This record gives sequence, C-alpha cells and structure tokens, in this order.
Amino acid sequence: MNLSGIIGYPVTPFNHDNKSVDLDKLGVVIDILLEALVDGIAALGSAGEAAYLSEAEWQQVADYTVKHVAGKVPVVIGIAELTTEQAVTYARHAHSIGADMIMLSPFSYYKLSEDEIFRHYETVSNATPLPIMIYNNPATCGVDMSPEFMLSMVANIPNACMIKESTGDIQRMHKIFTLSDGKVPFFNGCNHMALEALNAGASGWCTAAPCLIGDQPKQLFEAVKEGKNETARELFYQQYAFLEFIVTSGLAAAVKSGLALQGVSVGAPRRPLLPLGEPAQKRLNAMLTDLT
Amino acid sequence: MNLSGIIGYPVTPFNHDNKSVDLDKLGVVIDILLEALVDGIAALGSAGEAAYLSEAEWQQVADYTVKHVAGKVPVVIGIAELTTEQAVTYARHAHSIGADMIMLSPFSYYKLSEDEIFRHYETVSNATPLPIMIYNNPATCGVDMSPEFMLSMVANIPNACMIKESTGDIQRMHKIFTLSDGKVPFFNGCNHMALEALNAGASGWCTAAPCLIGDQPKQLFEAVKEGKNETARELFYQQYAFLEFIVTSGLAAAVKSGLALQGVSVGAPRRPLLPLGEPAQKRLNAMLTDLT
Amino acid sequence: MNLSGIIGYPVTPFNHDNKSVDLDKLGVVIDILLEALVDGIAALGSAGEAAYLSEAEWQQVADYTVKHVAGKVPVVIGIAELTTEQAVTYARHAHSIGADMIMLSPFSYYKLSEDEIFRHYETVSNATPLPIMIYNNPATCGVDMSPEFMLSMVANIPNACMIKESTGDIQRMHKIFTLSDGKVPFFNGCNHMALEALNAGASGWCTAAPCLIGDQPKQLFEAVKEGKNETARELFYQQYAFLEFIVTSGLAAAVKSGLALQGVSVGAPRRPLLPLGEPAQKRLNAMLTDLT
Amino acid sequence: MNLSGIIGYPVTPFNHDNKSVDLDKLGVVIDILLEALVDGIAALGSAGEAAYLSEAEWQQVADYTVKHVAGKVPVVIGIAELTTEQAVTYARHAHSIGADMIMLSPFSYYKLSEDEIFRHYETVSNATPLPIMIYNNPATCGVDMSPEFMLSMVANIPNACMIKESTGDIQRMHKIFTLSDGKVPFFNGCNHMALEALNAGASGWCTAAPCLIGDQPKQLFEAVKEGKNETARELFYQQYAFLEFIVTSGLAAAVKSGLALQGVSVGAPRRPLLPLGEPAQKRLNAMLTDLT
Repeated sequence: MNLSGIIGYPVTPFNHDNKSVDLDKLGVVIDILLEALVDGIAALGSAGEAAYLSEAEWQQVADYTVKHVAGKVPVVIGIAELTTEQAVTYARHAHSIGADMIMLSPFSYYKLSEDEIFRHYETVSNATPLPIMIYNNPATCGVDMSPEFMLSMVANIPNACMIKESTGDIQRMHKIFTLSDGKVPFFNGCNHMALEALNAGASGWCTAAPCLIGDQPKQLFEAVKEGKNETARELFYQQYAFLEFIVTSGLAAAVKSGLALQGVSVGAPRRPLLPLGEPAQKRLNAMLTDLT
Repeated sequence: MNLSGIIGYPVTPFNHDNKSVDLDKLGVVIDILLEALVDGIAALGSAGEAAYLSEAEWQQVADYTVKHVAGKVPVVIGIAELTTEQAVTYARHAHSIGADMIMLSPFSYYKLSEDEIFRHYETVSNATPLPIMIYNNPATCGVDMSPEFMLSMVANIPNACMIKESTGDIQRMHKIFTLSDGKVPFFNGCNHMALEALNAGASGWCTAAPCLIGDQPKQLFEAVKEGKNETARELFYQQYAFLEFIVTSGLAAAVKSGLALQGVSVGAPRRPLLPLGEPAQKRLNAMLTDLT
Repeated sequence: MNLSGIIGYPVTPFNHDNKSVDLDKLGVVIDILLEALVDGIAALGSAGEAAYLSEAEWQQVADYTVKHVAGKVPVVIGIAELTTEQAVTYARHAHSIGADMIMLSPFSYYKLSEDEIFRHYETVSNATPLPIMIYNNPATCGVDMSPEFMLSMVANIPNACMIKESTGDIQRMHKIFTLSDGKVPFFNGCNHMALEALNAGASGWCTAAPCLIGDQPKQLFEAVKEGKNETARELFYQQYAFLEFIVTSGLAAAVKSGLALQGVSVGAPRRPLLPLGEPAQKRLNAMLTDLT
Repeated sequence: MNLSGIIGYPVTPFNHDNKSVDLDKLGVVIDILLEALVDGIAALGSAGEAAYLSEAEWQQVADYTVKHVAGKVPVVIGIAELTTEQAVTYARHAHSIGADMIMLSPFSYYKLSEDEIFRHYETVSNATPLPIMIYNNPATCGVDMSPEFMLSMVANIPNACMIKESTGDIQRMHKIFTLSDGKVPFFNGCNHMALEALNAGASGWCTAAPCLIGDQPKQLFEAVKEGKNETARELFYQQYAFLEFIVTSGLAAAVKSGLALQGVSVGAPRRPLLPLGEPAQKRLNAMLTDLT
C-alpha cells in the first residue's frame, strides 16, 4: 500500500438531537474532502469523535465512508478502543467492508506497558490482513509510544507498516527517519507542525483542515515536495493561526463550527463536548474569511 | 451522608476465559474488604476495571455489590464515562438499585474545558438525588481539575458534596482545606501518600489495599486520628513499598495477582491489561509475606 | 552533629544603594531568628541571596554570622557555586571561621551528570572536616538529585551525613526514609509542606519564616513531635497561605518586604530581583497582621 | 546590523591545570570556525563555558576574540550573569573593545518575573549602544521567556533587535514569525532542530558544530535557502546523530573531546564538568570519522 500526501479526516455529523449519525451530511463532508484533493480519507479518527459513538454508529460510519468514497482514494479506518477485544471486532469489520487500512492507537484508562501495547497491536494484526498505521497521540489516548518502540512493532508485527506521529515533537520524526534509514513511512498528525514534518521527511499529513480550507494543505504539501521553500513557508504561515486554532479548540468542535459557518450544518459535537462559544466562533469566522 | 475512614475498592473477578464477570468471586472479595473493617465499599472504580466492562457487566457488578453489601456499609458506585449520556444512564441505574453515592470523574478523549466538565457534572447531578463525590485522577482520566474548580462545583451543583483527590500532590489537599475552611470533605486516592493526606485533614482513604493486607490501612487511619504519630509513621512505612507497588504496577493487575497468591483466584485483568509478570509477582509475594 | 528542629534562614540586608552588606542589620535579623527559638542558623542559603553576592561579601556574611551567633545554636553555611574550585574555597573559609556544618548544593549552568555531582561533593568533602548537608533544590539550582543518588553520596562520601529536600514531592522523603531504614536524617526545605514532612519523619524544617512569624514554625514542629495532631494541623493551616506566599513570591523579596513592614529595614533584594510590588505587599501585610 | 547564516561558537581552551585560559589555542579554534565559513563568531556562550570563568578570564576571552577575528565577520559577545550589575559591566566591556553585538540571557537562581527580566534587559540596553540578541535557553539559564514577551522587549527596548531561541520547540519560532509578521530576525539555538528552524524562517543557526565538522552546517543553511530540499534533508540527517550527541553530552565537554580527537588539544572543561568518558569518546570518534 502506497499512501502519501494529504489524508483527510471527516467529522461525524449528528442529527439535531445529537442522538444519531446524519449519514447524508457525512457524504457531504467526504465530498468536500475529495474536492480538496485529499489523497486518502481517514474515518473515525479524533475528528470523527469515534470515542463518543456507540458500536452501531461506529459501524454505520465505517460502512458509509467506504461506500461513499467508492475507491476514489484509499480509506483508512481509525480504531482506538479500550479493550483489545473491541479493537479486534472493529478491525474485522473494517476488513469485511473493504477498507484499505486501519489506523490503530492504544486508548488507555490504566497506563499501558510496552508489552501490553505490543500484544494489543499483535492481536489486532493477527485478526485481519489489513495494513496498520501505528498512531501515537498521547494527548488524546493517554499513552506515549517512543519512536524506538513503534519501529520495533513495525519490525515484528506483520501488518504494522507505517506510523502517524502526533506528539508535536519534531525530534520523534528525526528518530523515526534515522533509526529506519528513511524506510518506514511516517505521517504528521500535528497540524501546526506540518511544514517541518514534511521537510523532515513525512510521507504525508493527516488533517481535518481540508474540511474547511480546501486544497491549501495539498498546496503546502506540493510546495515542499517541489523545493519551493518560500512558497511553502508563505502557505504555511497563512494557514498557521487556523491550524493552531482547530487543534487547541478541540478538533471536532472547531471543524463542526467552521462547517456551520460555511453553510454545512453538521450538528454539535457530542456531550460532554460543547460547540465553540461565541468569541471562538467569531475568531474562526475571521480566519476562514481570510483563507477562503 | 457522613462518609469517613477507609473506602475499600474491590477488583472485578472474571471467569477463566476473561469474558464474563465471576459474581461469586466478587462476593468473596467484598467479604475480604468487610473483614478488613472498611467504612465503605466503592464498586466500579479504577481497581474494578470499570473502563473495560460492557454495559451489561457494569450493571451486574453494581447490582451484585449493593445486594451483597446489604447495607453493612455505604456503597459508592464509580462512574467514569466518555459521554454524558452514558454517565447519566449509569447514575440512574446506581440510584435505582439503592446505591448510597456516586463517585464521578470525567473521562476524556478530547481534553475537556471547565465549562464542559461543569455541565457534565451538573447533568448527572440533575438525573438522580444521589450525593456525588467529585473524583480527580488525571493519570487515568486524562483531565486535571484544580481544587478551585472542584470547589466551585461543590458550591454550585446540588449533589456534589465531596472530593476524591488522586493526583498525589499534597498541595491540592491544602488548597481544598483552606479554600473551604475545612468544610468540604476530601478523600485521598493516592495510596502512597495516605499518611500525609490524613494528617492534612482528609476524611478518609479510598484504597484497594485492604483486598490484600486486611485492616492495616484502617489501623493507620486510626493511629493518625488518635495522634499516635510514631505508630502511624511506623504503620505507614511498613505498608509503603506495597502501596507504591500496587499503584505503579497497575492497580487491577497487582491486586488480582496478590489475591491469587493468597489463594483467591479472581482471573486476569482484561486485555490489553496483562497480569503481573514473574519477577513482579515474586516481589509482591515477598511484600505480602512480610505484611500478613 | 545532632541537628534537629527549626533551622532559621536570615536574609542578607543591603545598604541603601544595594551595593554593600549591612552587617548591623544582619545582626538584627539573626537576633529575630534566635528569639523565634530556632535550633540552628543557616547563612547564605537561597533566602540569603548568596548567588548574588561577591566573594568578599559572601565571606563578610559568613564571618559575621558565626561571630554573632556565638555558639548559641549551630551555624550552617550554604554553598551553591558553579565551579568546584569556588565551592572548595568557600568550604575552607567556613571551616576556618568555626562554622558547624555546610549545606552544599550543585548549581548548574550545564546540566550535571551524577558522576560530575558526586565528584563535586567528594572534592568539597575532602577539603574540610565539616559535616555536609546535601541540599536538593532543582527549582533554584537546576539539578535534581534522586533520593537513591543522595543516599549513595551519604554512604560513600565521608562528611556527607544529612539531606535537605526542597522539591516539594513528599515521595522523595518516603524514599529517603525507607531506603535508609530511617537512619539518614533529612530536613524539609519546602515551607508549605512542613506539616507532612515532619509527619513523614523529617528531622527538621529549614525556613526563613521565623524572620517574620516568630516561633510559630517551632510550635508546629513541637505539636507534631508530641502527637497533637489537631493542634499541628491548625497551626499549619494558620501559616499555610503565608508559607506558600513567601515561596511563590521569591523568598528574599518576600521576607525583606515583610521585615520592612515590621519596621526592620533591610534594603531591597539585589537586581535583577525586585522588591514586592504594592498589591503583593498589601497581601503580605494582611497575612502578617493575622499571624502576629 | 545584518546578521544571518551560521554563527560559530568557540569553546574556551584551558591550560593543563585547568586554571587559566589558553589564548593561543582559542585563536586556533577561531580559525577553525572561520575556515568553516561561519558568518559570525559568538564568544562566551554556553559552548565557551562563560559561566565557569572568572571576571578576568571572561575579559581575556572577549578581548582576544575581537582582536583575533579582526573584523572578518561580526563578533557577538554572550552575557549570562546572575546580577544586572555584572551584566552591565560586561556589556560595557564588550562595547569598549569593539564587539559588534551582545547576546544577552537572564541566568537565574531565583525564578525571575517578566518585570524583573524586562528591567534587566532595559538596564543593559541603556548601558551601551550595542545591538542585543535576546537569548532564550531555559535548560541552562533556568528561565523561559515566551515569544510574546521577547517580542515585547524587542518593541520596547531600544537595542533589543533579534532573538535566539533554544527551547527546541518549533512552535516558538512559528509564534515569533507570525506575531512579528516575519520582521523580527530569530536564530536557532537547538542544533538538532536546525533543518526545521531554517525552513520556518530562522535567519541563521547558532552552533558550535563547525568546530568539528567544518562547513557542513553552512552547506545545510545554503541548501535550505536554495530550495534544494532533498539535499538539505540529506545533509541534516547526515549530521543529525552528531548534533544530538553534542547537545545531550554537554556542549563544552563534547566539543573539547572532539577537538582533542582531531588533534587540537584544548584541555578539559572546568570542574564540576568532566570530559567525555571512554565510551562517549568512541561514539564521537566514530561519528566524526563518518562526517569528516
């Protein structure tokens, strides 16, 4: 599997009462991402509020996404479950519906040892033939995996073949690159470090930003690849305040508010998450007006 | 509701295949706690692996605990759910079965703002008349609540009336005490800081330790209350290595291994959690031999 | 050497232009500490702005302190120098003037390895027969020494015989106590954790508080020793806001402002340190009025 | 003053007994830097062990450096003193000898407030007409200055005109760039983040690496400027292990050991700093053999 470029993250739209998924709107969001020239779609990531969905809803979103994307770009399914058993169930489901890859992160209540995490990945890997992107995001998942440890999983777990790094520490990417001689693909999951991640050798950038700002992330990706450094820097700094904003405001809440501002009503995030307050919405609106 | 002293935390025993709760064994564990002279039983806390149970299992454990304790001591039900809706469902269930109190913590994927946390507590409070112990444990729940914020919830949310503090930072307790003029009861949730928490004015100590070392926590509690400082210090340091061990090894894994060593087989923790490895079991066995 | 109880820390008074030490005023401050029933005097610690003195001033303060205390209580001389050579020079000076002990901390620009720190202590120890209190205060000195490492210095460096712990982490004291079977004396250097440190077995409390609040720290020390827990807690919480204030406001600035408020003018701290601003002075004044 | 590119940092050679500066060897080191095509020389930085020099030695090094560089490139003099008075003395000296700029950082024993830091910079600025590079390096200096605060000093203190950022957090550079509309020049002080800093808009890179690996840092600088991204990435990863090594091993010790391995004996760093041990020297030797 040869994934690179911009991997777009749809939010999960809800109906008015917040109690069910609005699949039609999910289709609209996916179409927005495709028009933004994303190179892949990753459903059920952080932006997709996967942690807040029931099992039935989770499966609905997975099924609908694969069907709606219809092979135009690869579909990655995010899995971040508290129990290994549930992660296996979801992985099998992803495989059964024809997803191309899973993005697997530990999600912890108790802190997990490397041994526990390794077996978690191994067990999920054994359950399906799908390639696995190892996803490190301690801020949401409560577990931090070192580059060394993730590379040992890539070396020893058959389907584990790429890494998504979201700590925001550029040194992690340096380590992944140098320790693997540049051979293990890694993706950037920290929006406001995209410029540097791409310069440091990231294969791509996982982001919900194209939900709101079209192909500007793709343009940045291409400027870096083409060595247009001034252009890349300019593009990055144009997007910077926006990228930082959606990360620090809570991705789902920020993107959903932004879509509403742009006329695509996708409902609120699920409680306890709250929509952006007035002042934050105004700030976001100003940024979107500048950018689009 | 007047809770003080030692609040005992049972683990949740599983059957061999790890796929269902062993309720008889749960009864055995609860009896061990009662014989250890605990002043309350808190089901479905961290030690009880609540995060790893299905909804049906969660309810089984809650129901069985209330029935088995049968009013001998108050029963507290832990609730740490990702969505407010699920927390409300569980709170109502706890009330319906006659539990005495709920211990409520936010559990986050996305970092939560104080506004989001406040509404979470408020919504749960509105759902039942049960008293609420606000539980702060950033290491497991991913959210850290300041003393100031928790006290503002006690002041403004009708059922919120006590605090359990598990950060291990004694200054938090100083703040709770001084900011509330000693009027808001707080409990210690950091096992290896029990001596100091009790000296700093904690109403009690929430702990799974009595599952393994009988009434020694209760003896420590009483020594502090009686001003027997040398005795208290001696009792604390006797237990210290053990208390630190169960915290740093993962409470559920450590207590389950300890019970097995003492002849009470309660199964393994649920994957990805693993039982203690050989060397850790040996260390635990040595400590338990010294202590019991 | 048998040191225990309250070790009082004088500030270093400066003349108006801030360019020389006011030795007469230093005598006044030392007398205030002696009237507060301190069990030892520690000159040239953090409170004494040792880091901001010239070599000549440092020696003046050391000499005057030993002479003025005149054997009424032991005198400890603080040494926190960037180079080993300077630390040795100061240690020899302390010995030559009849000080009873040195309190030695590493002070770093570059982070120091344990090997570097060990040799620093060893070299200073070899320079004089004075007992050495190992002082750990990462917040000011930029180096954090673990309990295990400090105990290894006590075991292997002839004059190293006690520890002053100022991290504010009560677990460090638990470790020192348990790893040394209670045999290595340790002192508390974190004012607003005094109650717990004493309960955890600290031999004493190193503090500048008696410069401003008389024998109240000594009363707290004695209440804990006598098992009067309610009294101890009450005394501690009475002092708590004040103790936290002087730590978080900068010890030298806070104590100097406090002395001025009490009619003992000792000059400003040395630049870049600034005296307390108006609002902080008012807060301090209110606390001192309550306490004295 | 228009500074950009590679600012080279000489170490300070000592004579055998470590008790005096070896000025001839300092000349050799400066020549090595000039041959490595540095665009400026910064004496008395971290690499120069400024914190461990006496006042007389400090002045010798400053004087000799200005004379020896003889206008070939600008000379920056580092000042990181505990007292404002001493910083002023050094700034005046730097001006009197014809240095081109000072690089000023706070160095703290007590944590400093922004007000204290501001006045420190302001007072030094008022003492001479030399341009000031604000230097933020919390790891050595114990004080962390935010981008917002440093920019406020640039705006309000006449001579403060550039920033050197050494936290290793790329977001700091994003903030400096965006908050100043790219108008305040900033330099990278974190060796193993050089690639990203330059891509993010840094005017240059402050580094002791050219003492050991010639013009390779300069080549990296130029590759980025010319948009040769593949080359830049390749050059960076070639140097990466070495750059990380000299930072994590202690800059002065590592560079001095490296110079000795290359036949330029500059003595040991000053105690408590120790030279690299055997295994570290071997690792360094292997890296240098690969790189040179």
